[in-house]
Amino acid sequence: MSENQPLTRFRRKAVKVEDALQSIISYISKAKTEKVSLEKSLKRTLSEDIQTSHPVPHFRRSGYDGYAVQSKDVEQASKQSPVYLKLVDDIPCGEVPGRRLESGQTARIMTGAMVPEEADSVIMLEATEQEERNGSTYVKFTKPIQSGKNITPIGEETAEGEVLLTKGTEVNPGAMAVLSSLGFSQVPVYKKPQIAVLSTGTELLEVDEPLEMGKIRNSNTYMIAGQIQHNGGEPVIIEKFPDDVDAARKKLQSLLANQELDMIITTGGVSVGDYDIMTDIFLNWEGKTLFNKVQMRPGSVTTAGVFRDKILFGLSGNPGASYVGFELFVKPSIERMLGGLGVQDKQTAYLKVNYTKVNAFPRFLRGYYEVKDGELWAQPVGLDQSSALLSMKDTNALIVIPPTKTGMKAGEKVNVIPV
Amino acid sequence: MSENQPLTRFRRKAVKVEDALQSIISYISKAKTEKVSLEKSLKRTLSEDIQTSHPVPHFRRSGYDGYAVQSKDVEQASKQSPVYLKLVDDIPCGEVPGRRLESGQTARIMTGAMVPEEADSVIMLEATEQEERNGSTYVKFTKPIQSGKNITPIGEETAEGEVLLTKGTEVNPGAMAVLSSLGFSQVPVYKKPQIAVLSTGTELLEVDEPLEMGKIRNSNTYMIAGQIQHNGGEPVIIEKFPDDVDAARKKLQSLLANQELDMIITTGGVSVGDYDIMTDIFLNWEGKTLFNKVQMRPGSVTTAGVFRDKILFGLSGNPGASYVGFELFVKPSIERMLGGLGVQDKQTAYLKVNYTKVNAFPRFLRGYYEVKDGELWAQPVGLDQSSALLSMKDTNALIVIPPTKTGMKAGEKVNVIPV
Repeated sequence: MSENQPLTRFRRKAVKVEDALQSIISYISKAKTEKVSLEKSLKRTLSEDIQTSHPVPHFRRSGYDGYAVQSKDVEQASKQSPVYLKLVDDIPCGEVPGRRLESGQTARIMTGAMVPEEADSVIMLEATEQEERNGSTYVKFTKPIQSGKNITPIGEETAEGEVLLTKGTEVNPGAMAVLSSLGFSQVPVYKKPQIAVLSTGTELLEVDEPLEMGKIRNSNTYMIAGQIQHNGGEPVIIEKFPDDVDAARKKLQSLLANQELDMIITTGGVSVGDYDIMTDIFLNWEGKTLFNKVQMRPGSVTTAGVFRDKILFGLSGNPGASYVGFELFVKPSIERMLGGLGVQDKQTAYLKVNYTKVNAFPRFLRGYYEVKDGELWAQPVGLDQSSALLSMKDTNALIVIPPTKTGMKAGEKVNVIPV
Repeated sequence: MSENQPLTRFRRKAVKVEDALQSIISYISKAKTEKVSLEKSLKRTLSEDIQTSHPVPHFRRSGYDGYAVQSKDVEQASKQSPVYLKLVDDIPCGEVPGRRLESGQTARIMTGAMVPEEADSVIMLEATEQEERNGSTYVKFTKPIQSGKNITPIGEETAEGEVLLTKGTEVNPGAMAVLSSLGFSQVPVYKKPQIAVLSTGTELLEVDEPLEMGKIRNSNTYMIAGQIQHNGGEPVIIEKFPDDVDAARKKLQSLLANQELDMIITTGGVSVGDYDIMTDIFLNWEGKTLFNKVQMRPGSVTTAGVFRDKILFGLSGNPGASYVGFELFVKPSIERMLGGLGVQDKQTAYLKVNYTKVNAFPRFLRGYYEVKDGELWAQPVGLDQSSALLSMKDTNALIVIPPTKTGMKAGEKVNVIPV
């Protein structure tokens, strides 16, 4: 945006989606960090690399219930001439073998138990028989066994000092298994970004107010609160802005000054109408407006600015447009705070139906994609007007329709952005 | 299982995965219900159908900032002979139009505002000009407009009395928008199933204990706690079972009698070894053992039983096998409690690499699948031994390898079960 061409309510320069996102991301710093208890770590994002302090496994582990042997002792074993070894020990899980295993001896051992140093293989229980002789127990073996068989060697899974989980990884149940095995009862994670969300608009009723003619209930705030939670942030729901621009500006200033908040999202009021208070605010505030128009449908009036390192998003008041604005700009911003790159995650899918609308700008359709016989197929859901409220509930991806004069045909490949 | 052939430690009848699941599901009743505040409803499951109590929208809504007109007034408008209508009203969002709109008159109107009854279209601001004449304001129109244009009719999105969200639906951000627009500040949902999870095994250390030779830290409990949370349940982490079978039996009885618990999951102790206390318990307890062997790898010793309507799962102690056992049996059980069908969600994908292992039973490989150019490709991750601890962190699906004597080739189609 040239400094000589100030933004006005009507003169807006539409920037590309990619450029708009890049201009935001460049201002975003990583979230603060904290430690949470292991059982609360699901879906949190690691703020440190997680390294092994020991090899896994850290002792030679039996893979079966059976008998630990020196394989050369049973080298000649067969059904015709079985080998008998004297049973001298019983090694349950969790114990260190109590005695040396000499040649000619064997030890009963459990799955997962520590193999005696002198043994080099474990023979499965089912392949053996026990016999009592002169007050001692002998085990009968009828087959030889390969050295190393049924023993998991030290470090088979991983060596000491290896990074198993990298900074920026979202903790899943498998990662919880790794963390617990490495002794992390407390897990280092990024703090959830605290994101204020509020709406503007004289037409908005609170959710628990009765419906009136001309008014609608505030749905954007809760939808966006859901989107924030879904992407790892913590929504802070704020009462809607007053209708008076000066009062709203004052309220915004206090939010911008609030050290507890990492971002602020408003919906509505960014258009060119007389009551579009966010438009006025973005033209004259203490922060820097990054863009106030984007080459996209819906949500071309999506606006963003920065005050210090706090991003202020002015999303459209139309539910569909604010939904799309969140996914395209806020989601990658949160991801960036949580140690990610802050880019769109795009995939390729096949378009399931013809799309006939002509676009000058890229269009981000609310869509549903599913796997059919190994292929990904996507189709628009519901009404795609930006004012439509009901299509988001069935949306699992945005379908990217590039600028087109002819529309697109069923079976053509499109980009989809999972939500 | 024939009543005449009692189960023993060694004589086990392996049932098919589908039959095992079905035998569990038939005992599962739906979870209790509760109401949660809208902002806490994300990812919860609706326990009631959500119906509209009004059409959406419930008034004729302007799609743009502009002027409401009677289209017949501007029928003849052109650049050469523009039509001037007298501006008589200004309708912001949220207000009911204050006066009748006569022929020859127009009203300024905002996006989302209620259109006066007499107007049948809205002309966009950008296509107009205002002129002052004799102390009145007139608006100049240079084009005709179609009747109905730029007005969203009542009920365009949905009629009154329609079910918008069905019982059993997981609440996503779009559903939160619907719920708020319909006035649900409290949302009816199923209570999260309370699921006790505990481990057995003398070899297990607590997560914060220092490592010892022959011992490993308890990782299954936390992994499964994560799987429970991920699937909409609430884990109740219980101290590990005592090593003594009678003490363990007593502990189990108190868990079975605990009305706060909906399910119990143990890991370990279900094999044929001398210290496998869960095997003993499942052979003699107050509940009914449904199966103690399944035609699957890993986790063939997976065991389940029922006491009243409480399912007791005895998963394998091997991390990989307990992970798979959870996904195949516990996950659909939770889903069933939350109003779902309780079946496996399978998709088709292409196998990315050759798989050479021969199987007598279906094998459920921990795998990773991703979309490549519109197609779904799946490959195994890490070591697939059931004792392997590290492969789950990279797993996003189980790859189903049917019984095979020849293995499978890269490019063949396989079923995958997303996790």
